[in-house]
Amino acid sequence: MEIFDISLEIAEDMPTYRGRKERRPRIERIRTLLEGANETRLVLDTHTGTHMDAPLHMLPSDVSIDKIPLSSCMGPAVVLEIRHRPVITEEDLRPFEPVLSEGHFVLLKTENSFSDLSREDFVYLSEGAAYFLAEKRLKGVGIDALGVERDQPGHPTHRVLLENGLVVVEGLLLRDIAPGVYFFIALPLKIRGGDGAPARAILIRM
Amino acid sequence: MEIFDISLEIAEDMPTYRGRKERRPRIERIRTLLEGANETRLVLDTHTGTHMDAPLHMLPSDVSIDKIPLSSCMGPAVVLEIRHRPVITEEDLRPFEPVLSEGHFVLLKTENSFSDLSREDFVYLSEGAAYFLAEKRLKGVGIDALGVERDQPGHPTHRVLLENGLVVVEGLLLRDIAPGVYFFIALPLKIRGGDGAPARAILIRM
Repeated sequence: MEIFDISLEIAEDMPTYRGRKERRPRIERIRTLLEGANETRLVLDTHTGTHMDAPLHMLPSDVSIDKIPLSSCMGPAVVLEIRHRPVITEEDLRPFEPVLSEGHFVLLKTENSFSDLSREDFVYLSEGAAYFLAEKRLKGVGIDALGVERDQPGHPTHRVLLENGLVVVEGLLLRDIAPGVYFFIALPLKIRGGDGAPARAILIRM
Repeated sequence: MEIFDISLEIAEDMPTYRGRKERRPRIERIRTLLEGANETRLVLDTHTGTHMDAPLHMLPSDVSIDKIPLSSCMGPAVVLEIRHRPVITEEDLRPFEPVLSEGHFVLLKTENSFSDLSREDFVYLSEGAAYFLAEKRLKGVGIDALGVERDQPGHPTHRVLLENGLVVVEGLLLRDIAPGVYFFIALPLKIRGGDGAPARAILIRM
């Protein structure tokens, strides 16, 4: 059994959505070993680094992150590598149709994995591609960007995925992951009423 | 496959170590759906709620939470129920010796599971019990208290466990978990240089 960590490190200089400095976490040691033990205070957002979105993030929904069942946080996943595209469209996904199985996850390894995660013009998933994946009745979608979309008024990609019950995991570190089939686990912090939460995400290959 | 969530909810009124109010997290919505999306800022400590300690928490070690291998964060676990004891000693654990297997986890379900997690006088693991578990070459120890020890100068229980390479998981919600054997996963946030981190912890029964 091989386990791969596909989570971003949480640090003050970590990449943030479109490079926004005000979204950097603050990490402050509040007690040291000399005082008895090292302890640290964290200030971070629900959408920092590797994280899961709850429907409440983008919809007038009562499904917050603590209400997402654990069975939706794990399952078989196919990592698709789609390079040299500014946006992932339905046409880009269609060739992979035979491996898009109901109840599985799709993790998108795009040009983002080979560039700066803070960039403004990151590769995202189009609304049409989101419909295509929702029709496949996938369990969820993960992407190697800090957002699954950008510059689409009304956030249609998020809405289509979340309205259709797909889990959305953003900020996956897929650079060193070969395309293929894995078992995926992404466990978000259980924040009561949270619109999302930082998560630790892993892949297991048997 | 049954999945059990054994993580505490993170909320402003959640229990804290010995009821310390200054250790309560702050959870503030910083953006709403009317502005485009719900987003939230979190202020919390590395040892809030369900969490994992790194050796750096209590030892002059360079092993921070981001350096704990994922293989140390999961594995077979036995949940032991030991009621009506103010402290878990080696004598309390000895009857369970046949089920304490090298490379497995032990999760301690004590009187804490039936009382207020904020209480001052929570049930803890004695130094002798820690030695006993370390000698069994367990992978880790979990407990249903916000600390694995209290009122022991120099934190010998932590030191014995961490010096012997055992993972320590605190703040487990075991009230509704029947004693027995499970597969345990506790995934801490990957905080660079962290002395510990909030984690989502689950049990799986096949």
